[in-house]
Amino acid sequence: MDLNADVGEGFGRWELTDDAALLDVVTSANVACGFHAGDPATMLRACELAAARGVAVGAHVGYRDLVGFGRRFVDVDPAALTADVLYQIGALDAFARAAGTRVAYVKPHGALYNALVRHEAQADAVVDAVRAYDPTLPVLGLPGAVWLKRAEVAGLPVRFEGFADRAYEPTGALVDRRRPGAVLHDPGEIAARCVEMATEGHVRAVDGRVLRLRVDSLCVHGDTPGAVAIARAVRRALTEAGVALRPFTADQRKLSA
Amino acid sequence: MDLNADVGEGFGRWELTDDAALLDVVTSANVACGFHAGDPATMLRACELAAARGVAVGAHVGYRDLVGFGRRFVDVDPAALTADVLYQIGALDAFARAAGTRVAYVKPHGALYNALVRHEAQADAVVDAVRAYDPTLPVLGLPGAVWLKRAEVAGLPVRFEGFADRAYEPTGALVDRRRPGAVLHDPGEIAARCVEMATEGHVRAVDGRVLRLRVDSLCVHGDTPGAVAIARAVRRALTEAGVALRPFTADQRKLSA
Amino acid sequence: MDLNADVGEGFGRWELTDDAALLDVVTSANVACGFHAGDPATMLRACELAAARGVAVGAHVGYRDLVGFGRRFVDVDPAALTADVLYQIGALDAFARAAGTRVAYVKPHGALYNALVRHEAQADAVVDAVRAYDPTLPVLGLPGAVWLKRAEVAGLPVRFEGFADRAYEPTGALVDRRRPGAVLHDPGEIAARCVEMATEGHVRAVDGRVLRLRVDSLCVHGDTPGAVAIARAVRRALTEAGVALRPFTADQRKLSA
Amino acid sequence: MDLNADVGEGFGRWELTDDAALLDVVTSANVACGFHAGDPATMLRACELAAARGVAVGAHVGYRDLVGFGRRFVDVDPAALTADVLYQIGALDAFARAAGTRVAYVKPHGALYNALVRHEAQADAVVDAVRAYDPTLPVLGLPGAVWLKRAEVAGLPVRFEGFADRAYEPTGALVDRRRPGAVLHDPGEIAARCVEMATEGHVRAVDGRVLRLRVDSLCVHGDTPGAVAIARAVRRALTEAGVALRPFTADQRKLSA
Repeated sequence: MDLNADVGEGFGRWELTDDAALLDVVTSANVACGFHAGDPATMLRACELAAARGVAVGAHVGYRDLVGFGRRFVDVDPAALTADVLYQIGALDAFARAAGTRVAYVKPHGALYNALVRHEAQADAVVDAVRAYDPTLPVLGLPGAVWLKRAEVAGLPVRFEGFADRAYEPTGALVDRRRPGAVLHDPGEIAARCVEMATEGHVRAVDGRVLRLRVDSLCVHGDTPGAVAIARAVRRALTEAGVALRPFTADQRKLSA
Repeated sequence: MDLNADVGEGFGRWELTDDAALLDVVTSANVACGFHAGDPATMLRACELAAARGVAVGAHVGYRDLVGFGRRFVDVDPAALTADVLYQIGALDAFARAAGTRVAYVKPHGALYNALVRHEAQADAVVDAVRAYDPTLPVLGLPGAVWLKRAEVAGLPVRFEGFADRAYEPTGALVDRRRPGAVLHDPGEIAARCVEMATEGHVRAVDGRVLRLRVDSLCVHGDTPGAVAIARAVRRALTEAGVALRPFTADQRKLSA
Repeated sequence: MDLNADVGEGFGRWELTDDAALLDVVTSANVACGFHAGDPATMLRACELAAARGVAVGAHVGYRDLVGFGRRFVDVDPAALTADVLYQIGALDAFARAAGTRVAYVKPHGALYNALVRHEAQADAVVDAVRAYDPTLPVLGLPGAVWLKRAEVAGLPVRFEGFADRAYEPTGALVDRRRPGAVLHDPGEIAARCVEMATEGHVRAVDGRVLRLRVDSLCVHGDTPGAVAIARAVRRALTEAGVALRPFTADQRKLSA
Repeated sequence: MDLNADVGEGFGRWELTDDAALLDVVTSANVACGFHAGDPATMLRACELAAARGVAVGAHVGYRDLVGFGRRFVDVDPAALTADVLYQIGALDAFARAAGTRVAYVKPHGALYNALVRHEAQADAVVDAVRAYDPTLPVLGLPGAVWLKRAEVAGLPVRFEGFADRAYEPTGALVDRRRPGAVLHDPGEIAARCVEMATEGHVRAVDGRVLRLRVDSLCVHGDTPGAVAIARAVRRALTEAGVALRPFTADQRKLSA
């Protein structure tokens, strides 16, 4: 199993996550690429910290919207979006190379992540960008998202993630953040759900129903107080349950090496 | 001999140069990388146009200053500047790859170009960035610039350019743009000077003295009315003088291939 | 009758409209405020040119999206949008004051203009901003737009514009730009329609039906080749038809003075 | 005596200072205006918090450099700088008005603050901006700075500040931040120096010499851990020493009212 978290989400003077601490816990790092967060110096440092720990570097691509932190839908034209995503992957890959590694996967951020669940034109645009950069580059997202279906058709390696601290609808969608109970806070409960997803391949939906999910990676968060502690609890529980942790891209990277 | 020009200098709705026309004339294209100009879609298009014509793609890296078009000195910390330059090279390389080519060289833009003639800390920072990205990547600049001396020591391939339409001081420096006569406008005179630089290896300075210059590439401009016509005149004159035109990186690229 | 056009739509090195020429023709200037276009120096110059000609200065407020020129919908939170609009009006008013005048009205730009026709939360947000800045400041937009209804309820002076070069649906909506015939190009036809709107209060819709419209201002465009010539043709035709041209805010300003 | 501090220094998702806590302590607030920090929503909130506490709102104007937090010198052309400063003052004044107050003074930020001590062209540019906005608007800065001399000549009300936590050269300049002992950390010592400046009009320089200083306002910092506690200690010590605290603009504002 893989654990992924967002890092590099500062910008210049502003910091958000304790990257060094998070990178001691996770096996894959979604590094901001400068459009929603992540100035170049922060990106370089995140790549160096990740590489030093054997953590896989993922391109956390988003809308160009620093002030909105990439959390607002932008009705970008598909051709422009393809170029925006290529730009971000290439920029991050320069830092990955400088740190002795390479971008190992692509995961969309924030409002783009949500839009790609259903928005077909933007989905195709992002798939086009990844394929143009490297047709062997894996993509990571929510099971059922339209962009991952397109990615599969396009021949990209597709991987799925589960959310450590989010409640699920019976459909497999995440419960809307604004609804009560959408975000879980109890470290024990979160860790137990992660173990269930990792070892049983299912999770309990909000209505109690058992939901089968393919999960190649578990997403933990790092941008709230106590988040690193929760991430550590998840890692400890998985290890105690006998689940080995390593980047989900480990196999892929062997194949392409 | 090589002819280089700046392209991709639009941003979104705004255009500056007629890239398709310029790329029919030159053999190397300095493509803006998003910091002083160049939105991703414009960069991608510039790379596609260049690749289709066999024109070499160079990373035209600058200060992060859209509103000032990279023409204002910014006292960037060296570590930040290294990261800024890596970011720009990587981003452009993504488009070069998507267009079936690669970034073939690095040339600084505007105020950064001028600062690197003397500013040692920024010079080292840019050299560090290029070397970290690819220690075989050529750099292009003004003969005598401190950053090219550092690049040479660092083992980067160093190439020099002459300016088609600029007057030279007897020292080899360019005459300050604000002085009368600093910029030449007569296509015939400009073309004749280019032929002199290409075939004789010298140019006449403002005081009439003959100035010996190593010139691997001639820089023509594309952002003023009539600029494309001047570039065409330079190309025609060189061809008529028997000077073959091809990217200055052609040899280098064979070596590294 | 009033003629309005967009000016100040450059950004730093990039120019788009010939502001001096346009401001010789129109009576109201929608000045970009830095979010979709308009660097401070350009804004100041536009205000000075407008003030020198007795042209009213309007705040052309938009989404924060330079690369998209404010033409892409951004799902901005209403509270943030209120602040964004206040910021833009205040910034422009500083230049208007420095030029010896004041911001005389507010008109949204691009995707925001279109969103406010129907998006209630954003409509309220913009109305809140204008009212917070100055509850006597007129707003200008499309007849029937939801934001103008809200503005009316909020007590703001509401004015309506007709489009010189756009085809109308029988509903009064503009024909979608992507449909053939949506944009008119013949100066004579455009001028004739303007005279009809100004003197008869109606215009012919695409199906030939006569559409009654309250029009306090006619919008002409300045960002395409030949646009200034069309604006001049409209002005000439109106003058010849005996329609006096002056800022639609002229009365309003007398009242508040 | 007046106490001033920087507030509104977040940007979107990123926060830096605890504005509500700082505004409970100081009497003047230097509010970031969007160029080095301060998104519109943050600026509006800072103005509302300040107005609710009777704290004066100052325009903390800086270079357009979000990623560098305005701490890097930018060689801006004077005409552009005048426009940049006007833009920022106007934008902030919109929020001040919405909050029921007005911009009460102007204080430059970071690298601009430092540049204006000696850079004559930029000094004149900033003075021109303030005067164009409102020739009765006070300016606040370091005693001896060239821009304040120009401001005085231009007829602007000029006020001077002392630094609570900085060591002084015998010349009255601040000791370079990079030198040991340049920044004081002991709350007791800082408070004692403030009382000395407020009641005696002098402070001890690093060589022990007594330095006479005109101080209309004491600057405390809010962007480091423990900063609010130090600001509270300064306020308490001043109050205990019988120094009344109120905005330095209080008299000025009465005059212009």
